[in-house]
Amino acid sequence: MNWKNKITELLHIDYPIVQAPMLGVSTPEMAAQISNAGGLGSLAVGGLSPQKTTELIRHTQKLTDKPFAVNLFAHNIPEVNGQQVIDMKTFLLQLCAKYELPFEEKDFAPFEFHSYEEQLSILIEERVPIVSFTFGIPDDAYLKQLRDKDIRLIGTATSVAEAVLLDEKGIDIITAQGIEAGGHRGSFLDKDRLPQVGLFTLLTGIRERSNTPVLAAGGICDARSIAAALMLGAKGVQLGTAFIASDESAAIPSYKARLRQAADTDSMLTRTFSGRWARGLSNDFMQEVEQSGLEIPAYPIQNSLTAKLRALAQQRDNSALTNLWAGQAANKAEPKPAATIFKDLIKQTEELAYSRG
Amino acid sequence: MNWKNKITELLHIDYPIVQAPMLGVSTPEMAAQISNAGGLGSLAVGGLSPQKTTELIRHTQKLTDKPFAVNLFAHNIPEVNGQQVIDMKTFLLQLCAKYELPFEEKDFAPFEFHSYEEQLSILIEERVPIVSFTFGIPDDAYLKQLRDKDIRLIGTATSVAEAVLLDEKGIDIITAQGIEAGGHRGSFLDKDRLPQVGLFTLLTGIRERSNTPVLAAGGICDARSIAAALMLGAKGVQLGTAFIASDESAAIPSYKARLRQAADTDSMLTRTFSGRWARGLSNDFMQEVEQSGLEIPAYPIQNSLTAKLRALAQQRDNSALTNLWAGQAANKAEPKPAATIFKDLIKQTEELAYSRG
Repeated sequence: MNWKNKITELLHIDYPIVQAPMLGVSTPEMAAQISNAGGLGSLAVGGLSPQKTTELIRHTQKLTDKPFAVNLFAHNIPEVNGQQVIDMKTFLLQLCAKYELPFEEKDFAPFEFHSYEEQLSILIEERVPIVSFTFGIPDDAYLKQLRDKDIRLIGTATSVAEAVLLDEKGIDIITAQGIEAGGHRGSFLDKDRLPQVGLFTLLTGIRERSNTPVLAAGGICDARSIAAALMLGAKGVQLGTAFIASDESAAIPSYKARLRQAADTDSMLTRTFSGRWARGLSNDFMQEVEQSGLEIPAYPIQNSLTAKLRALAQQRDNSALTNLWAGQAANKAEPKPAATIFKDLIKQTEELAYSRG
Repeated sequence: MNWKNKITELLHIDYPIVQAPMLGVSTPEMAAQISNAGGLGSLAVGGLSPQKTTELIRHTQKLTDKPFAVNLFAHNIPEVNGQQVIDMKTFLLQLCAKYELPFEEKDFAPFEFHSYEEQLSILIEERVPIVSFTFGIPDDAYLKQLRDKDIRLIGTATSVAEAVLLDEKGIDIITAQGIEAGGHRGSFLDKDRLPQVGLFTLLTGIRERSNTPVLAAGGICDARSIAAALMLGAKGVQLGTAFIASDESAAIPSYKARLRQAADTDSMLTRTFSGRWARGLSNDFMQEVEQSGLEIPAYPIQNSLTAKLRALAQQRDNSALTNLWAGQAANKAEPKPAATIFKDLIKQTEELAYSRG
């Protein structure tokens, strides 16, 4: 089986298989293992401070000489609605009391929003070879800066219209994020109606409208799903959930355990954790916030409001009060080294191709 | 390419490709054309009177000697909530006035619910060789009656759990209906939370839990999507939307026109037309009923309330006030004879297989 194609060539990697950036789950160790194995590891830095961003990139660079991607959130910061925030804070404090999480008013993080603009100069200085982004497209001036440094660009589309826009901007590679995918939806067009396009349709639609090479994301979990994505026109795949239970994952033990037992219907789309739609395993936090009937502040305001609360829950291995991002094929996540998961995928995909002639 | 497998053998057909039953769209002519071409045509009779059921079956039998399937709605009839019905009627009359559809109080159809139990004896008498069903599973006594007559059974699953239940009941073939699919969701477990599983994950999950042969439905629209579904473990496919614009379709012209221009994000899940979740192209009716904030009566009550109104809209080729069921790959629907669409799919799938060795 020949893995070489436009994507491996553009990214200088051996296999067109990407470990998805997963803020709070992926680690420099995970990204480095995948890149060292010939795939593309990704570091998630969306919303992190310039200092933390630098730190993570340097850490990863110590662990691998191979290319890895750094993932940005390319969104604008909305205005804060004071009353919404007060109501949500009040509710969250009541929720913590109910679930006996020792979180108090003083523990809320101060609002401090880092936009991708602050991070771009770091990426350039640190000579990051590949920048992926989601939630939108960086402004043209920034795209030019990155291109001038020969940095490869990967954008995220959740609809054909979004892919066409990425195409028009000359983005090198499009990640087609099917509705099956775990974590945040990358959607950036049509604020009122979240695209919910399944991977079958999304790949078909993009293939017919664009020549930009596509990475398929959402529900990719084994050799057959990789082969099916390639059949539908993708040139590579991106897997996130498959690595959440890995040894290098920062996911807490109770999250990993729930993942492996999850049914296909256990994950839901929710705005409760961050203010943006994301897919995760349903838990008490999601249900309580949804049932509250409160308006959820927009991203990244809600994200900031819940950040320290979730961090505290994670410290206590409490899966009821933190986000458990997961794709629909969550039960395929295996508790193994990330590199082993990756190599098994390669091997099984090659065996499948061989067995089918 | 060898099309013969467990499904073609069970159903005595040449190609494991099924034309989906589509109430109000599929016709005896459509079903017969597909069956005559070596696939499996389907007749939708869910909720129809015994007389109409007989009529449609006999009409189809006149047009083909080949096997075709008759599709039932295997659900229970809920109690009518009088106030809900009064409120909905009032709203619908206002809506018709607003959109200048000459529909009045006296035009509402009387409630008359035909359950699948009334239809089963007809299917047996008329020697229908294949019965497919959705919205549930017929009671064991009925399953036995059908099996005793050597009738093949096809059930619909929208989650792995539903597939496992069909498997336990010994149903011959499972149609895996991905979230991409147009028309009614076949879901029957977990009334509170509609499964929204993408076809990638659904096929993967069912393949790992069941040996019953699977037909993939939802987003199947061309050779590559057929090949991808087979790669994911399906033994055949079911296409509905692909046939809506066909010459034999009962769809009105404005519906066919909207379909061919539809974006992947234009279809939405809605309960507004029938009381059950279904995927269709968004239009004024859907938006108005959703924005009304009214509780929508359960299926088939809402279906009955809107039936005559929709029929009148259809007579006037008014696509704003009737259901426009469509899957996510709606723009692939072609205005050709159904048999031509079918034969093209076969040919292109064979060419794809050949080109890939």
